[in-house]
Amino acid sequence: MNQITRSTPRSGGRAARRAARAAALPEHLKPIRPGLEGGQYTPLTEADMARIHAAALDVLETVGLADAPESGIAHLAGAGCTLGDDGRIRFPRALVEDVIAKANRSVTLHSRDGRHDLDLSGTRVHYGTAGAAVHMVDVDGRNYRDSTLQDLHDAARICDELENLHFVQRPMVARDVLDNREMDLNTIYACCAGTTKHIGTSFSDPAHVAEALDLLHLIAGGEDAWRERPFVSNSNCFVVPPMKFATESCEVMEACIAGGMPVLLLSAGMAGATAPSTVAGAIVQAVAECLAGLVYVNAVKPGAPAVFGTWPFGLDLRTGAMTGGSGEQALLSAGCAQMHRFYDLPGGAAAGIADSKLPDMQAGWEQMCSNVMAGLAGLNMVYEAAGMHASLLGFCHESLILGDDLIGQALRCVRGIEVNDETLAVEEIAQVCLGGTGHYLGTDATLGRMQRDHVYPALGDRTSPKEWVEKGKPDLVTRAVERKEAILSHRSAARFDAATDAAIRERFNIHLPA
Amino acid sequence: MNQITRSTPRSGGRAARRAARAAALPEHLKPIRPGLEGGQYTPLTEADMARIHAAALDVLETVGLADAPESGIAHLAGAGCTLGDDGRIRFPRALVEDVIAKANRSVTLHSRDGRHDLDLSGTRVHYGTAGAAVHMVDVDGRNYRDSTLQDLHDAARICDELENLHFVQRPMVARDVLDNREMDLNTIYACCAGTTKHIGTSFSDPAHVAEALDLLHLIAGGEDAWRERPFVSNSNCFVVPPMKFATESCEVMEACIAGGMPVLLLSAGMAGATAPSTVAGAIVQAVAECLAGLVYVNAVKPGAPAVFGTWPFGLDLRTGAMTGGSGEQALLSAGCAQMHRFYDLPGGAAAGIADSKLPDMQAGWEQMCSNVMAGLAGLNMVYEAAGMHASLLGFCHESLILGDDLIGQALRCVRGIEVNDETLAVEEIAQVCLGGTGHYLGTDATLGRMQRDHVYPALGDRTSPKEWVEKGKPDLVTRAVERKEAILSHRSAARFDAATDAAIRERFNIHLPA
Repeated sequence: MNQITRSTPRSGGRAARRAARAAALPEHLKPIRPGLEGGQYTPLTEADMARIHAAALDVLETVGLADAPESGIAHLAGAGCTLGDDGRIRFPRALVEDVIAKANRSVTLHSRDGRHDLDLSGTRVHYGTAGAAVHMVDVDGRNYRDSTLQDLHDAARICDELENLHFVQRPMVARDVLDNREMDLNTIYACCAGTTKHIGTSFSDPAHVAEALDLLHLIAGGEDAWRERPFVSNSNCFVVPPMKFATESCEVMEACIAGGMPVLLLSAGMAGATAPSTVAGAIVQAVAECLAGLVYVNAVKPGAPAVFGTWPFGLDLRTGAMTGGSGEQALLSAGCAQMHRFYDLPGGAAAGIADSKLPDMQAGWEQMCSNVMAGLAGLNMVYEAAGMHASLLGFCHESLILGDDLIGQALRCVRGIEVNDETLAVEEIAQVCLGGTGHYLGTDATLGRMQRDHVYPALGDRTSPKEWVEKGKPDLVTRAVERKEAILSHRSAARFDAATDAAIRERFNIHLPA
Repeated sequence: MNQITRSTPRSGGRAARRAARAAALPEHLKPIRPGLEGGQYTPLTEADMARIHAAALDVLETVGLADAPESGIAHLAGAGCTLGDDGRIRFPRALVEDVIAKANRSVTLHSRDGRHDLDLSGTRVHYGTAGAAVHMVDVDGRNYRDSTLQDLHDAARICDELENLHFVQRPMVARDVLDNREMDLNTIYACCAGTTKHIGTSFSDPAHVAEALDLLHLIAGGEDAWRERPFVSNSNCFVVPPMKFATESCEVMEACIAGGMPVLLLSAGMAGATAPSTVAGAIVQAVAECLAGLVYVNAVKPGAPAVFGTWPFGLDLRTGAMTGGSGEQALLSAGCAQMHRFYDLPGGAAAGIADSKLPDMQAGWEQMCSNVMAGLAGLNMVYEAAGMHASLLGFCHESLILGDDLIGQALRCVRGIEVNDETLAVEEIAQVCLGGTGHYLGTDATLGRMQRDHVYPALGDRTSPKEWVEKGKPDLVTRAVERKEAILSHRSAARFDAATDAAIRERFNIHLPA
């Protein structure tokens, strides 16, 4: 009698529930959606955040940043920064506070289809990929091989069909496109031809931006259309931590701002190598660097859309190698999310990184830990959220597909616990217990909420051991391979119309088959 | 230049760091330990908690609980409850509030060795196993088979060596011991002979408790020694949700209280079947049931140690089958943890359950999601935290071992972000950037904290793809098998001395080989 007993509902009810489940849900009744509001998890106190802010201001004022390009020195000096004899740009506290006060409180990252726009504000949470892996994980052969343009395109196509991947920042490098200029252009082509969701990408040289904008104008149907709804943002490592501007990336940034492309101000320090080893210290430095970036962006063009990209990474101090799957990493990103809220600025950080080489149990726990904590902390943009292995070196299509299930559960947690008269269920408890059936399986409340309250996994297995044996003990990764093949077996709906594609191919050397 | 660059430290430094790491850390410098304080995650607002409390009081006052045993009716009526014509015991609000005010604010769950005592108070978090699986998962053959007494003993032995498993509630049923009385007694023997950590167990009949206490007196070295440090608690499903006492379990409870055994008041409703389908409603009912249990315990013996065991489980409403790996489950347990804090009562709930049948990626994300959220919510006792598959039907030794790594990362997250002058690192940033080396790898701050700040996985793999290939692509589960075999290859240190063991075996029919 001390065993937990299980209910075994009758099969008639089960069939009815299965049928009800099969019907597609209208959007507003879906249990989860992009932009759910987090913020229930607060690893930092108000006092902690004030101290981190004050420390970041100290660092900006006393240490400053080296290596700004000439153009950046001009912009920043014009805004009120000082250039020291040591070549470092220093930021007066009042200037930084002023820019924070005036900066955009929200950014919309557009989708090409208009159905997947991302509203980055408050504690709204979005999950997506990011990069840049140099290997593709082949799960069948347990191999790592160089990633290709086709792999990248396929990743975009897969993301296009996964509900819980809300954007596609270029997850891997097309290593088969050897020319850097062609790689940058083909990266945009391969991503946009695979998904109509918002794209993030990088440029390896400022000189590539103009041509990329030409390509985007072609895809958008003209410059005006592009500028009205820029569906690609620039992931920009504008700093080389600690506290140095990445000279050429800053020039890329200026060109993107001029071209109407939103910028992700990405500060990717490694805690213990290029940033302090403490979680708090790494956050201080990342915040200082991104505040410098924010001043820079607003000096170039006041109000230009920028994402506050504090991306500190963890390091395994035993080996000096990066690690993204640790609890320390989850704290780094969640703490950053809180600082974004402290400033009320749209922000992003990295979560969901697995150190594991394959989509195994370790990958599952690593990806969930940081993903759910980032979401609960209210991170606007959770980058690297799916598919990422070997501490960012490998990308895996099957893991990406499984990540959709994983993020679905994380998003359910972000949605949280609704407390109202209906959900508290006092009336229902009384009805069921006092003369009712004694159980809740068939109540209106249960049936009415079974779809809008519950997230059901697509590939995650919930069968009993008996059913599992009857189904031939389905293997999780094998099922993901099947899903991948199903998605990739049909042509991407995001592909450009024939005339546009021809125009693009006439102008650019597109390596992807038509 | 927009790629994230990696530092490649020299091998001399790496060797030094490896050597430093190899030295054992003194206890107080360990990065994580039992009883770290959570509470940074609050899925419920203060108003939400007040409403849940009020709803629970409503339910206790108007619905009450049926099926109390005669002895329980006497205890509860004596305390001020009313017995209705419908046989239901109803609880006046003032009585419940009074009991909450007077109940124990903390419980110590003792270990046999004195080194693993658990202080259940505030937001102190402890992770451990619980039950009761009826299958053993054989990872090599991908099979489910009946669990045995030896499996149970082996699980206890494994837990004894895993730092992040803080207690051992009987995770599975010894199905090869067919007599229920002998099963209950052998369960205690097998657990205690495997670990000196705190044990939780159940009794299938009130009549078994007296003999179990005799066995425990023998193990402890006398009744006084047992009563001074009771190292076994009773996991007691004292209710059959919704809102009925489990008559015989209540009698077990009374016997355990009399025998000095702490009681886990376990309410295991299934949201959507035996509890409302909403997260809030399931919490209301669980809270109401456990408050009833608290009144009961304190009526039997004021101040008797009891753990507030709100264990609502999730249900897959498509099939009516239990699911423990969902986001809804994580919310259920985290919300319960907050209610424990609302009452300032020592509490426990279930987390870490995998629906997956094997220790695969799904198992990893399911186990981490609820484990880390329970910890961050400050749950005193996180039951079911490792090894549990197939929605509680299967237990897996290899998964238990991997769970130690998983919980280690979760505990690192619970420890949180320390913010002080040292961790903020303003001085260090200035030193490194202004005339320093430009990196933090060799700073005193980094080296001095590399062990006490960072949790390194035992089996989790952080090698680069290149190293991973050189090591022969180690498989995670295979490594867990090896660890299991290493642990089980030597005799358990928890085994009783020869005289005690002989005395036990003379008195009881112990099925485990000597």
